[in-house]
Amino acid sequence: MIVQRRYGLIQLFKETLPPLIILALWDLVVVILFQVYHQDWMEQPTLPISLMGSALALFLGIRNNAAYARWWEGRTLWGAITNNCRSFGREAASLLGGRPDLARAMAAYPHVLRAALRGEATGEDVARLLPDSMKAPVFSCTNAPNALLYHIGLGVRDEVVKHNIDGAVHGTVDRILSDIANAQGGLERIRNTPLPVQYSLLPEIATHLFCIVLPLSAVQTLGWITPLGSSIIGVLFQMLDRSGRDLQEPFNASVHALPMATMARTIERDLLQPIGEQPGAAFTVQRGVQP
Amino acid sequence: MIVQRRYGLIQLFKETLPPLIILALWDLVVVILFQVYHQDWMEQPTLPISLMGSALALFLGIRNNAAYARWWEGRTLWGAITNNCRSFGREAASLLGGRPDLARAMAAYPHVLRAALRGEATGEDVARLLPDSMKAPVFSCTNAPNALLYHIGLGVRDEVVKHNIDGAVHGTVDRILSDIANAQGGLERIRNTPLPVQYSLLPEIATHLFCIVLPLSAVQTLGWITPLGSSIIGVLFQMLDRSGRDLQEPFNASVHALPMATMARTIERDLLQPIGEQPGAAFTVQRGVQP
Amino acid sequence: MIVQRRYGLIQLFKETLPPLIILALWDLVVVILFQVYHQDWMEQPTLPISLMGSALALFLGIRNNAAYARWWEGRTLWGAITNNCRSFGREAASLLGGRPDLARAMAAYPHVLRAALRGEATGEDVARLLPDSMKAPVFSCTNAPNALLYHIGLGVRDEVVKHNIDGAVHGTVDRILSDIANAQGGLERIRNTPLPVQYSLLPEIATHLFCIVLPLSAVQTLGWITPLGSSIIGVLFQMLDRSGRDLQEPFNASVHALPMATMARTIERDLLQPIGEQPGAAFTVQRGVQP
Amino acid sequence: MIVQRRYGLIQLFKETLPPLIILALWDLVVVILFQVYHQDWMEQPTLPISLMGSALALFLGIRNNAAYARWWEGRTLWGAITNNCRSFGREAASLLGGRPDLARAMAAYPHVLRAALRGEATGEDVARLLPDSMKAPVFSCTNAPNALLYHIGLGVRDEVVKHNIDGAVHGTVDRILSDIANAQGGLERIRNTPLPVQYSLLPEIATHLFCIVLPLSAVQTLGWITPLGSSIIGVLFQMLDRSGRDLQEPFNASVHALPMATMARTIERDLLQPIGEQPGAAFTVQRGVQP
Amino acid sequence: MIVQRRYGLIQLFKETLPPLIILALWDLVVVILFQVYHQDWMEQPTLPISLMGSALALFLGIRNNAAYARWWEGRTLWGAITNNCRSFGREAASLLGGRPDLARAMAAYPHVLRAALRGEATGEDVARLLPDSMKAPVFSCTNAPNALLYHIGLGVRDEVVKHNIDGAVHGTVDRILSDIANAQGGLERIRNTPLPVQYSLLPEIATHLFCIVLPLSAVQTLGWITPLGSSIIGVLFQMLDRSGRDLQEPFNASVHALPMATMARTIERDLLQPIGEQPGAAFTVQRGVQP
Repeated sequence: MIVQRRYGLIQLFKETLPPLIILALWDLVVVILFQVYHQDWMEQPTLPISLMGSALALFLGIRNNAAYARWWEGRTLWGAITNNCRSFGREAASLLGGRPDLARAMAAYPHVLRAALRGEATGEDVARLLPDSMKAPVFSCTNAPNALLYHIGLGVRDEVVKHNIDGAVHGTVDRILSDIANAQGGLERIRNTPLPVQYSLLPEIATHLFCIVLPLSAVQTLGWITPLGSSIIGVLFQMLDRSGRDLQEPFNASVHALPMATMARTIERDLLQPIGEQPGAAFTVQRGVQP
Repeated sequence: MIVQRRYGLIQLFKETLPPLIILALWDLVVVILFQVYHQDWMEQPTLPISLMGSALALFLGIRNNAAYARWWEGRTLWGAITNNCRSFGREAASLLGGRPDLARAMAAYPHVLRAALRGEATGEDVARLLPDSMKAPVFSCTNAPNALLYHIGLGVRDEVVKHNIDGAVHGTVDRILSDIANAQGGLERIRNTPLPVQYSLLPEIATHLFCIVLPLSAVQTLGWITPLGSSIIGVLFQMLDRSGRDLQEPFNASVHALPMATMARTIERDLLQPIGEQPGAAFTVQRGVQP
Repeated sequence: MIVQRRYGLIQLFKETLPPLIILALWDLVVVILFQVYHQDWMEQPTLPISLMGSALALFLGIRNNAAYARWWEGRTLWGAITNNCRSFGREAASLLGGRPDLARAMAAYPHVLRAALRGEATGEDVARLLPDSMKAPVFSCTNAPNALLYHIGLGVRDEVVKHNIDGAVHGTVDRILSDIANAQGGLERIRNTPLPVQYSLLPEIATHLFCIVLPLSAVQTLGWITPLGSSIIGVLFQMLDRSGRDLQEPFNASVHALPMATMARTIERDLLQPIGEQPGAAFTVQRGVQP
Repeated sequence: MIVQRRYGLIQLFKETLPPLIILALWDLVVVILFQVYHQDWMEQPTLPISLMGSALALFLGIRNNAAYARWWEGRTLWGAITNNCRSFGREAASLLGGRPDLARAMAAYPHVLRAALRGEATGEDVARLLPDSMKAPVFSCTNAPNALLYHIGLGVRDEVVKHNIDGAVHGTVDRILSDIANAQGGLERIRNTPLPVQYSLLPEIATHLFCIVLPLSAVQTLGWITPLGSSIIGVLFQMLDRSGRDLQEPFNASVHALPMATMARTIERDLLQPIGEQPGAAFTVQRGVQP
Repeated sequence: MIVQRRYGLIQLFKETLPPLIILALWDLVVVILFQVYHQDWMEQPTLPISLMGSALALFLGIRNNAAYARWWEGRTLWGAITNNCRSFGREAASLLGGRPDLARAMAAYPHVLRAALRGEATGEDVARLLPDSMKAPVFSCTNAPNALLYHIGLGVRDEVVKHNIDGAVHGTVDRILSDIANAQGGLERIRNTPLPVQYSLLPEIATHLFCIVLPLSAVQTLGWITPLGSSIIGVLFQMLDRSGRDLQEPFNASVHALPMATMARTIERDLLQPIGEQPGAAFTVQRGVQP
């Protein structure tokens, strides 16, 4: 995710340039054909383009709101994982009375989860944090993060049986595991369920169509400055469409994706520091992008 | 649900073609009547069509937002069922200490539920997973998924009584069953409560009306290119209306429906793999559609 | 609630006819006065009507969204009552170990509640289901559904004391009663708190005003076809206003109201069938309307 | 809160009259200056006023949605207090086994809370309901409703210690107190946090500005009927602005405020009737306004 | 946060002045160039500016809604911290039976949290309230507020072990700590996750662009009064853009930020007064701004 204003500007400029050039070229073609060869059939009155603009605004409004809601829900669910992992760490100490191995396994959880969401292999962080006894049973399951919660649950049970801990305390700790499972399921829901094709493809197609028709409709009144007027408006709608597309898949490998590596490290840090252990080195912001 | 961009394009093309042809034919009729026979009464000024566009945009905006919200709430409730079934699996092991038969009965639950939501008979998956002792009492009730939760609840009670398990632990497991009941009730609510007729029928009627009036209003200024300008705008509004209608019933047997078979299999897998059993074969995406 | 498309069309036609006739008559008066007597002062330019349309769209947009949200929240709260009544039935068996009388009392609850929401007397269903010992204390209270929950709570306490049931189990069952109380309070909130007068009256007044001004503004350009153009637009805005008014009071005795009788019967069925008892006969859809 | 349609109409008329008169006077000044003295500089073309209308619609749309959301959240939070006070009453009987003094103290709570939200002194209702032993410690704290919950909590503890009640039961009752604390905090949040000045002041200023410019822009085309056209539109936007301002402070002493006295009496009634006591007399609707 | 209407007006005036001056100067340049030198190429027809206005309204609508939602969610999460800290105070007395040191540590928590959210050092309030034994372990962790919750959790455990308190009671108290952790995580989420660059930068750029083009488009029809018409509209859109930017970072050191110092003091007061201790002096509103 881009977190620095300066790099945001650069990135937006980079993304805006190609459509701007294509639009300007097309506008130029239209204006030359019209001004030089006086192609009268090109003239289009105002009405259709403004009705088309209304339909486009409806499409883009609904889609971009939905895309932003997906992105922010994704971020909120990662926040729920952060909060509940921290609470699990506190409860491992205050309710179960210790078990740093379970806190460490929980510190591995967000790293396992982010690898699963990206469809990548788990890396060095998981190897370091996950207790060896859990590695085989967790990775033998298709859904590794879910299996990890299952085995943390078994670890809690061992502790409960060994020290004869009260059932209500056991239930309280297990509630945290259920809350983490709920957040994980929500993240998988966002990843596995793309926006309906109507909402992901139609705005894009309609925006392109709009940008093609726009100079045809404007050339009669704008004349030689058509490329200026038409390109500015075209680029604004292209950027609106693009903003929605950037946000609708918040876990993709893109500069606009949620900073899952950073969030996983934060969870690890907040679980390990209170039990006196050192987390891995923090990820740094590179070229304005938080990994 | 369509999950591949290429098939989405094909599907949208297929859906767009019929209204596009009808619209173009109507536009052609209008333009020929006007240009050839100079039917002056056809001329309509700009104002009415743009006010009509405003009313239509209000209708479509409210309806499509409501339809998308229904679709996404349906998906979120299936997500809640996924999460709580997984948590039940974990708790069957960590709180109750075993009982793979209950995990298996819970793996049958989403298959029973999806059959009930579609009004279909349950299939081979339920026959394989549901313990025989539960089959008769469950299917003697009108609401089979609810009866299944009831009998899983009785199974939990047996375990609690047999091993003298703490009441708080029993309460924690039962909370998960209540959460599943809440999600099931939400899904039934969406299926049993269609959008109010005003919001499902009026936008459709208004869109058709708009498309009929549109060329009459545009023919005077657009002349022979009316079919082009008018059809593009008409198709955009038709697709907006259709997007809403596609999403408002997320459990129908349609390519736009939620992939309930796939979700049920995922739940089954995440319940069976940790107890060392094999789930049924995954459903495959066919022609871009996830069943 | 109308659940069949065909009857929805008929109902919408019936509702649309009176305003359509009045609008067309008014349009006719305007067009005749203008065309025959050339009342020039009638001419109004485009601007005011389109600014008026903007204000109207804002009013209708906010009001209709609020009305739909009230209707859907009402339905969702009835769904919460459904879910929690079912869960109470399960818990009466699995946590308390029986007490079909309490399940029956709970089956009477939605019937008591729907009568209270409509301000009607309770009927034969309540007489059949509610244990005789509860009838006097429940109906001596102004808020009968709340008193019924209170006495079900006392019934649960009896069972807990008699069989020395664990406090955590008691707490779990009581949580369900609190959740039902929350949903009941939400339904009463919607019934007792009408939309603010600004949002219920102003859109209606503004819509009528708009329909009066509309032909005055259109007659100059539309001429003899004013009644056609103006009536179509007027009816669209009237229907938008009416959709909002239909939905804003979801418990009124109207064809657009929520199907509370059907929902109460469903709850009764799902509580009685698992304990082997027969619910009352299902309500049937009559002339497209679910009671 | 106004609950009768007739008085709502009267109230709206009263509120609409002053701005309507001022607007009509200003429109009259403009039209006379223009028609009589032919002040040409007054002519303004259409574009600016319609762009100004767009900016105004954005402001009013965002602000009125936020104001309605505040009002409805305020009502929902009072609903949460209603529900949880009722549940506390039930639990005092079913979980704690009596203690009508605590039910009475809880019946005093909404009266204490509504006085605190309005910044008024508590009245006769609190004096009647609150046990004498709690009066001094509660009113010595700045936040009296919070202190009352604190002391009800201590009363619950006494009962728990005296009858050796299970910890889980104690936790269940305390959960209700926490839910009430959450709702109280939400109400204080709405009262203490006004809408940002941008959203409360700017729409008002922009609306006034718009109404000043409107006749200047319309007089050229509307001529002598400017006051009619311009005033209708001006009043619609003024009423939109006013609707937002009326709702944004739902606890003020105004006819549009939430009926806190009535709600407090309802809670009192539902707590006292099941334990066989009589609540105070119900507040009556006076001149269409529920106190 | 500004809480007085008069200072709000002054602040808005201060913020509006610079863009107003710049806009008026630019408008003046345009009008002089046009009127004096008759630069014909400056003429722009209506269409492009109104389409540009549509794109801008979409951008500003989506962004300002998102910014307001962030601000209000921030306030709601601080409200959740308030409520749960109060409930912890009540539970420290009613469930744990005392421990004023824990109530005092909890009173220090909001002060630690607001320092962390602003990236500032903790001040005198924390030094006074936080028990000395907790200072070293809390501030050795990167996330001090989380570490403080951890150590309050350990303090609760001590009490539970010492007085052999029931596990369910322990679980109830711990649930409050988890709820505080959830709210803290939500606040960190808002601080650490800026709005996507598309939504924070593009509306700003588009607004500036719009204000540059606006007089070019209006000068032909408005003539010498262009600066008046164009500046008013330009300033409205600039203020809309600015409102969004002011709200999107609710924890910054700005007059529009949430009053975190005041909220922290309120929490401190409501925790200390019931145990008979005096909180620090209330922060006063200075020049209309609540700190």
